[in-house]
Amino acid sequence: MVTTEEKLVEEKVTTDFDLTVYLKERQQIVEKALEKSLPIAEPEKIYHAMRYSLLAGGKRLRPILCLASCQLTGGTLEMALPTACALEMIHTMSLIHDDLPAMDNDDYRRGKLTNHKVYGENIAILAGDGLLAYAFEYVGTETKNVPAQRVLEVITRLGRTVGATGLVGGQVLDLESEGKTDITTTTLTEIHTRKTGALLESSVVCGAILAGASSEDLQRLSIYAQNIGLAFQIVDDILDITATKEELGKTAGKDLQAEKATYPKLWGMEASIAQARQLSDNAISQLSIYGEKAAPLRAIASYIINRKN
Amino acid sequence: MVTTEEKLVEEKVTTDFDLTVYLKERQQIVEKALEKSLPIAEPEKIYHAMRYSLLAGGKRLRPILCLASCQLTGGTLEMALPTACALEMIHTMSLIHDDLPAMDNDDYRRGKLTNHKVYGENIAILAGDGLLAYAFEYVGTETKNVPAQRVLEVITRLGRTVGATGLVGGQVLDLESEGKTDITTTTLTEIHTRKTGALLESSVVCGAILAGASSEDLQRLSIYAQNIGLAFQIVDDILDITATKEELGKTAGKDLQAEKATYPKLWGMEASIAQARQLSDNAISQLSIYGEKAAPLRAIASYIINRKN
Repeated sequence: MVTTEEKLVEEKVTTDFDLTVYLKERQQIVEKALEKSLPIAEPEKIYHAMRYSLLAGGKRLRPILCLASCQLTGGTLEMALPTACALEMIHTMSLIHDDLPAMDNDDYRRGKLTNHKVYGENIAILAGDGLLAYAFEYVGTETKNVPAQRVLEVITRLGRTVGATGLVGGQVLDLESEGKTDITTTTLTEIHTRKTGALLESSVVCGAILAGASSEDLQRLSIYAQNIGLAFQIVDDILDITATKEELGKTAGKDLQAEKATYPKLWGMEASIAQARQLSDNAISQLSIYGEKAAPLRAIASYIINRKN
Repeated sequence: MVTTEEKLVEEKVTTDFDLTVYLKERQQIVEKALEKSLPIAEPEKIYHAMRYSLLAGGKRLRPILCLASCQLTGGTLEMALPTACALEMIHTMSLIHDDLPAMDNDDYRRGKLTNHKVYGENIAILAGDGLLAYAFEYVGTETKNVPAQRVLEVITRLGRTVGATGLVGGQVLDLESEGKTDITTTTLTEIHTRKTGALLESSVVCGAILAGASSEDLQRLSIYAQNIGLAFQIVDDILDITATKEELGKTAGKDLQAEKATYPKLWGMEASIAQARQLSDNAISQLSIYGEKAAPLRAIASYIINRKN
């Protein structure tokens, strides 16, 4: 009998495409762009605080999805790179604010002290605000060779993704569900769709918008992203149970400790793994029309359920 | 001998233009637009929190400046109304976050309990985030009959105004200056330029951008706005000393209590009043080319130094 962990590992990328090389190369592109995106100015403290969290590493999954989706639908890396950076600014902002004492009160993130532990609560709040505002400015000023109407669509979509209909609303639902023992799958999925899924979906869709993709392409890529978004969260819940603190770069077993609703708790571990795999397969099935060109997005959908952190 | 208070009052609007009627009418337009801008959805709590502060009244000076500037340079009310609302969303967000316990720790704002006193710190942080994100989304989706390029310029400018170069940076400088006894006029003005001036300037300039104003118009209106922005802050400092809590809707004498640097403290009351008047005159002098059409902006420049709260 295979163990649940072996099941997560056995999935293989079925093309010649080398995802490890691809991700490494893309991460380097993104890191370099992020490093350049936010030079230090006065008052230095706030720039240091913003850079501390923005440049703290991480998988850079959102930017990489944005770049891949833009290229898949006929755009260039350059068209999507500012938006890719903005997605990471937004993601970082949401992490900084979620970690605050008034929210989830976390001391560690990506293996480093959280922003407020280093810079204090006031600066951490402002660093989040600064990153959020800068994300919009950055897309507006840095996106080149893309019609203004598309850039505007991207900015509008990013705004919706962060606001009360997206990340912010998801965090509120999450706070409201704390300590409740009767959270249903519907509620849990609603929380994750807003907290994680919305930004992953926007990452994929914004890349395609910048490339001028057709509404059919946007539709397919939306469905792809919705499926990997949910798979991503299920695997997060699984890893919280199976991975070590070193692997995660943050406290493991936190969900159990906080008595949080998770998919493994609602469905059991076996069914959660099966569901993540099914969602990944659903995502991949949306890409068949693109053939070999979609190898990166296909591989990422597999990677999401096979990752160790 | 005239007292300092009489000096502030004696300034009169020199045209037939009735500012009181104008401001009242414009406030009603803005209140109605703000009320409609943010309908309640799920999760209701965050929408209630956002609306609590957004609809808490106030002078609505930023939206009114934006509308006036757009009309002065040939645009319509409709073109600028979404941006006018967004300016108030941004202003409200900055007030909610500034009032937080980790920041200025204020219990009252506009005569009402501050957001975190009603909804808790976590929701207040998220309400600010939600309003900021929504401001960008709202301008992007609601601005009609304006070329995308102009809307994009407005959004980019708003981002810059909120970020570390603007509001956020100003608040950091303000936090850093707390308790220091050697704050210079240069530092004080830098703080206010970022915390107050930048958004007032953007209010005026964005209205004109939406109307498609020439670079000469934008330049003149920038200077107008920089002058009223600083005058506004000097008068704020004066009112903190001379006005009552009822007039201000917030704690009076706070600056003195907090041993904050203020213009009256640096320059004395007489010189502060004279400087505010000079700045208002400078602002008005930028408008001569527009004749009677600029009556609203001219009257607002006078109002800013004659207001009671």
